[in-house]
Amino acid sequence: MDMDTLLVEPVGLEEVEGALARFFEESKLRAEKISQGYHGLWQTLEQCTAGGKRFRPRLVMSAYRMLGGTDVDNAAELGAAFELLHTALIVHDDVIDRDFVRRGIPNVSGRYRFIAERAGMDPAGARHVGFSAAVIAGDLALSNAHRLLERVEAPSGVRRRLSEILDEAVFASAAGEFLDIETSLDAAMPPLEDIVHMARLKTSVYSFEGPLQAGAVLAGGSEDVITRLGEFGRDAGIAYQIADDILGVFGNETRTGKTNWGDLREGKRTALMSFVSARPEWDSISALVGDPQMSAAEADYVRRILVNSGAKDYSAHLAADYARRARTHLESDAVPSALRAALDPVVSAVVDRVR
Amino acid sequence: MDMDTLLVEPVGLEEVEGALARFFEESKLRAEKISQGYHGLWQTLEQCTAGGKRFRPRLVMSAYRMLGGTDVDNAAELGAAFELLHTALIVHDDVIDRDFVRRGIPNVSGRYRFIAERAGMDPAGARHVGFSAAVIAGDLALSNAHRLLERVEAPSGVRRRLSEILDEAVFASAAGEFLDIETSLDAAMPPLEDIVHMARLKTSVYSFEGPLQAGAVLAGGSEDVITRLGEFGRDAGIAYQIADDILGVFGNETRTGKTNWGDLREGKRTALMSFVSARPEWDSISALVGDPQMSAAEADYVRRILVNSGAKDYSAHLAADYARRARTHLESDAVPSALRAALDPVVSAVVDRVR
Repeated sequence: MDMDTLLVEPVGLEEVEGALARFFEESKLRAEKISQGYHGLWQTLEQCTAGGKRFRPRLVMSAYRMLGGTDVDNAAELGAAFELLHTALIVHDDVIDRDFVRRGIPNVSGRYRFIAERAGMDPAGARHVGFSAAVIAGDLALSNAHRLLERVEAPSGVRRRLSEILDEAVFASAAGEFLDIETSLDAAMPPLEDIVHMARLKTSVYSFEGPLQAGAVLAGGSEDVITRLGEFGRDAGIAYQIADDILGVFGNETRTGKTNWGDLREGKRTALMSFVSARPEWDSISALVGDPQMSAAEADYVRRILVNSGAKDYSAHLAADYARRARTHLESDAVPSALRAALDPVVSAVVDRVR
Repeated sequence: MDMDTLLVEPVGLEEVEGALARFFEESKLRAEKISQGYHGLWQTLEQCTAGGKRFRPRLVMSAYRMLGGTDVDNAAELGAAFELLHTALIVHDDVIDRDFVRRGIPNVSGRYRFIAERAGMDPAGARHVGFSAAVIAGDLALSNAHRLLERVEAPSGVRRRLSEILDEAVFASAAGEFLDIETSLDAAMPPLEDIVHMARLKTSVYSFEGPLQAGAVLAGGSEDVITRLGEFGRDAGIAYQIADDILGVFGNETRTGKTNWGDLREGKRTALMSFVSARPEWDSISALVGDPQMSAAEADYVRRILVNSGAKDYSAHLAADYARRARTHLESDAVPSALRAALDPVVSAVVDRVR
């Protein structure tokens, strides 16, 4: 499930687009003075941010506007900072996952692998050129997420807090990526508790909690509403990740934009796998899960076992349960009803997709 | 040549150590709450910063103190920010160069490759686990260079300028790394102009210009001295890089801490190679340079050609010439004589090592 399909009222999105466009325009001008090739790297990075539906900026802007914020241009820089952080994380995540394509088109690694191959480099060397360019591009995006945040005008106490929120997003995402790698070294499937913990670190903090809390802090929201938005974001993010993992195995490839056997071949640690690994059915599929050569027929067999063992239903219920919990956190007088209404489609979308 | 051997008066270095130690202590405490493994990643990152002689913080502190700065604790956070940027760049540079060892001990990639191998992973998979952990660790260092900079207390105009200097350092280093990759795709050796341009981008900006100018800005130095320090840093960095490339081929391995055939096998683009590639002698070595299987005898042969063609002398003179130019920029009343005296050993050391 692409996060882009989660609908949130688009307030100030044009301003976010403007902030991103200005940032890339300035950066490309600077890069052009250095070399044509470096300008090309910046263009590639810009293309990585295009086409998304700005899910994180939407959350920033929704929280900001509905908690009384009025300086949309200023908040848009904050939204743009979270979008650039997202770009940094996906560019480096693609290196870690050894992916050369995203949304059906070559990503940074894919583009520079192609350039290296065309220059006559051997396949392994060209792959590494692709990864290297992506490491550099992701670094630029990450560093500039901080730079865009610095453009936000706010009293020093608010600035410090926004910077802490961005830092927490980086710290948690890095932890989540790292735990993911560590967990994959262990042949055993991790307990559900660990799956939920990783989902929170990898997804909730930077995609839900951070943007919502940052928007609220900039708007001058109460401590109560900031806390509630954090709790909502945590549970909504976990619900989203569990649902996304179901779609990664059972989803319609045309709608999700990715293959539905990649996660199975990779042996991705999910709630589905954690559940089935504690059941007798596990013995019949444990050798297949994580096999990079898994055939389409074998993938179908694994899916059948995931359905028959109850793993799919269990995961769908778990996602719905976290979505329900997320909604509960907003049931407070501290949360304006307009904000509650704006965030409702986020959780509905999660549950509807895997129902 | 390790930059650590360039001597600069150590003012406030203890405070820099203190700032770094506090930062890592806090980060490890936070990481420990997430998982033991993540704590281990932070420990590994801390080890990457240990053992260096804090060359960039030395430049920050020298400029700051000798231009009248008195709040050493505050300046130390700035010095620590540049040290962490350095860590980020070397950790990611090692990924790009596919190095698993630095200063004779396993780097981040080396440590996690080992862990993955011990867990039973195949060599290619284990290498990628190493790279992945290093991508994450470098991201943490890069993001936190910004965080340490934010801890520096200064009026908003000064803060903005310090942030621009850090940004320029990231922007230029990324450009230099990228040009390095691009240039290596072209079989032809680049002209000297490009070699000098890359040296400035990869070395001068973040290791010399940035730290010196940041220290001067924080101390409230005049525009004149800030400009002079930038010019000094640019030329000193170029001199350093040219000298370092000579030592990469002719250096004593025990003293430089790295093999002196790595650059030849890799076909590293240097002033040496740029010079010899325009001479008839090039025909006799062009097939050897960049050959990953080059033998010790072949490396000796290449070295002889580099000496006999005049490439070595030419490069040594070029380094000395940039060092001389660097000194000239400091000959101004705007530059206090104590600062000039403190920076003199930096350029002397460069030239002495390759004389």
